[in-house]
Amino acid sequence: MIDYQSHFESAIEALHAEKRYRVFADLERIVGRFPTALWRNEGEAREITVWCSNDYLGMGQHPGVLDAMTRTATSMGSGAGGTRNISGTNHPLVELERELADLHGKEAALVFTSGFVSNEASISTIAKLLPDCLIFSDELNHASMIEGVRKSGCRKHVFRHNDLQHLEELLKAADPERPKLVVFESVYSMDGDIAPIAEICDLAERYNAMTYIDEVHAVGMYGHRGGGISERDGVAHRLDVIEGTLAKAFGVLGGYITGSRALIDAVRSYAPGFIFTTALPPALAAAAVASIRHLKGSQAERDGQQRQAAQAKAEFAAADLPVMPSDTHIVPVLVGDADLCKQASDRLLKVHDIYIQPINYPTVPRGTERLRITPTPLHSDALIATLRDALVETWTALGIPFASDRPEGEERREDVTSLVVAQAGG
Amino acid sequence: MIDYQSHFESAIEALHAEKRYRVFADLERIVGRFPTALWRNEGEAREITVWCSNDYLGMGQHPGVLDAMTRTATSMGSGAGGTRNISGTNHPLVELERELADLHGKEAALVFTSGFVSNEASISTIAKLLPDCLIFSDELNHASMIEGVRKSGCRKHVFRHNDLQHLEELLKAADPERPKLVVFESVYSMDGDIAPIAEICDLAERYNAMTYIDEVHAVGMYGHRGGGISERDGVAHRLDVIEGTLAKAFGVLGGYITGSRALIDAVRSYAPGFIFTTALPPALAAAAVASIRHLKGSQAERDGQQRQAAQAKAEFAAADLPVMPSDTHIVPVLVGDADLCKQASDRLLKVHDIYIQPINYPTVPRGTERLRITPTPLHSDALIATLRDALVETWTALGIPFASDRPEGEERREDVTSLVVAQAGG
Repeated sequence: MIDYQSHFESAIEALHAEKRYRVFADLERIVGRFPTALWRNEGEAREITVWCSNDYLGMGQHPGVLDAMTRTATSMGSGAGGTRNISGTNHPLVELERELADLHGKEAALVFTSGFVSNEASISTIAKLLPDCLIFSDELNHASMIEGVRKSGCRKHVFRHNDLQHLEELLKAADPERPKLVVFESVYSMDGDIAPIAEICDLAERYNAMTYIDEVHAVGMYGHRGGGISERDGVAHRLDVIEGTLAKAFGVLGGYITGSRALIDAVRSYAPGFIFTTALPPALAAAAVASIRHLKGSQAERDGQQRQAAQAKAEFAAADLPVMPSDTHIVPVLVGDADLCKQASDRLLKVHDIYIQPINYPTVPRGTERLRITPTPLHSDALIATLRDALVETWTALGIPFASDRPEGEERREDVTSLVVAQAGG
Repeated sequence: MIDYQSHFESAIEALHAEKRYRVFADLERIVGRFPTALWRNEGEAREITVWCSNDYLGMGQHPGVLDAMTRTATSMGSGAGGTRNISGTNHPLVELERELADLHGKEAALVFTSGFVSNEASISTIAKLLPDCLIFSDELNHASMIEGVRKSGCRKHVFRHNDLQHLEELLKAADPERPKLVVFESVYSMDGDIAPIAEICDLAERYNAMTYIDEVHAVGMYGHRGGGISERDGVAHRLDVIEGTLAKAFGVLGGYITGSRALIDAVRSYAPGFIFTTALPPALAAAAVASIRHLKGSQAERDGQQRQAAQAKAEFAAADLPVMPSDTHIVPVLVGDADLCKQASDRLLKVHDIYIQPINYPTVPRGTERLRITPTPLHSDALIATLRDALVETWTALGIPFASDRPEGEERREDVTSLVVAQAGG
């Protein structure tokens, strides 16, 4: 007799043994008081400060967004009622796709129920529609992009992270007649570093490759209208596909791609993960439209985020905390050990009422375990000072090395070529 | 030079040539007046009646559901703000998973952002965790289940639709020591027929296989508390995994699985499509909880749906329309030709203000193209009579054969073994 249950139990035990078993914190966010949330644990409910949210600009509590959401739910209902093809296409969703195409200066857009699905379905479908396509993929690409590449069944070349020379070598070596797709991100969310987009576009043009960029950690936050790093750098028009999310800076749910009319129409028509899925509810689409429109016109949230991120980096560095270098709003603080990283997170929550998830392997390479802190415009200087003190107390109590205890430059980005499957975001 | 654009354009042209190009109707549903919606087309907006919604019970406009959704959005915000692991687990979602486990009498539940992802991620993860697993899959399984099977990388045997003898032959022929997973649906949504669940469980027990059932077209609608066909037939406890959706009868968005604590924990811990996806917003989770709780206690919606479905079948049959046999609330009417099916749908919309999507290959086998009608408790007898007359006018105007024009039994289920990839729901 096969004991099925034992297989699932031993899979779980393996995670415990590696200190990688994840416990989800039961949170209840409080509109008007972000980043405060109610944390429920063992019958107790306690107010804590969230320091690792992907609601990067606090738009998830913006009055205009909530008003659009509740008004639309009240007038059009809670769900879409069908797939896009079978009665599920709703008017706010049609408007949302227009808004997104405009945001990135593209002809068309297509909305999915998640960023994961948008990458998986779009990359696989685009590559499959190109005969014998070769994919060039950054080694630190997100799990959803890796799944898309895998699902395409196409041959892939992985290039070293943001390494233009390596990418060029690989492009140069490939058959010039063969279709090529370069797949990469603008902001890599675990390190907070940025891709050299213009230079990647140069290479793509030189070797006649298509480009697909994931801007999920940048849309809403960079560029004059929130069009992402590609808008900030003035290169959006050079990219074939810009993918983004509605679930982070825009504060709602869902993912999307933008591109030429024909490309979008082809993905719309051929991707099973799009075709056979219930459409986004009209209330969420309307909330997303309100959020995107607000951020197209308002710079205050972006300025506030950058200011508070810089403030946090400066405060932590001054307190000798090992802040890892980051070009963006993401502030990683190095721990360097899975068990200590989990202990630090637990102590911050239990002793200091501060919630920051530990980031361990396989999300980041072993030895670079870290706390990933995301200051928003709503994290005041006082909250930053409180966090700094809590981190110092925790580092001291647990014996985690401070910056001056570490070999010079250890908090710099590590060599990641040993990382088999680079995965970020979970 | 490779002309990338031309590849996408020719992919679209191929669909036009086969009359399979899909145009999404831009709809705006109206709370309090379902199944009426506003249809926008070429600058015009017109009221139409939706007859193909998967909001099967009209719960998408239920006051209690809308109240839960708007109250929660107002107090907790528009989005979840993170993945389940990184700050995205919200209290209504924790409650929703408890509610779903209770609905199916299982130890635990796990919520995904769509039913498609729940099948794809769960089937592939469960099968991968079992060493050298063999999968037995009904030939009419939904696209999302086929993707899950494919993604698992496991060897699969496809058994003829609902064919117990064929399933037994395949189980018997397999190595008794090898883990086995039988994957099937309760209600097949294009024909509306039902699987012999108890008999499949008998076989699974005899040959020591696990069972995974998709109840997306049954939850909320069958069983005393809306637990689906498995509840109605008293066999829920014999199934290892019951998968369902929040986006059809429950009127919201998302999918889920229920099962043993260890199995759910393993999928939670190992499925990339779950781990790396932003959590369902608290407002949607709260709306789903309200809907499930209502349908656990109220039989009125289920009775109304069955009554109106029976009424529609009787009226159509009396009018000599080729109603295909169906054991459920789904009422398929046979056209038998892709072009005529599209024309019928267009004529119903343009002449009669009635919206029913054409269902063509590959969703159903060629030669069985149909209109798939889903009466809800909100489709009154008067609306059914109006639809009957509109169908008769359309059948006459387009020269589509009536039941008496067809060879005896043609509207019965066709041989589907020729269908390479059975896909339903899009």
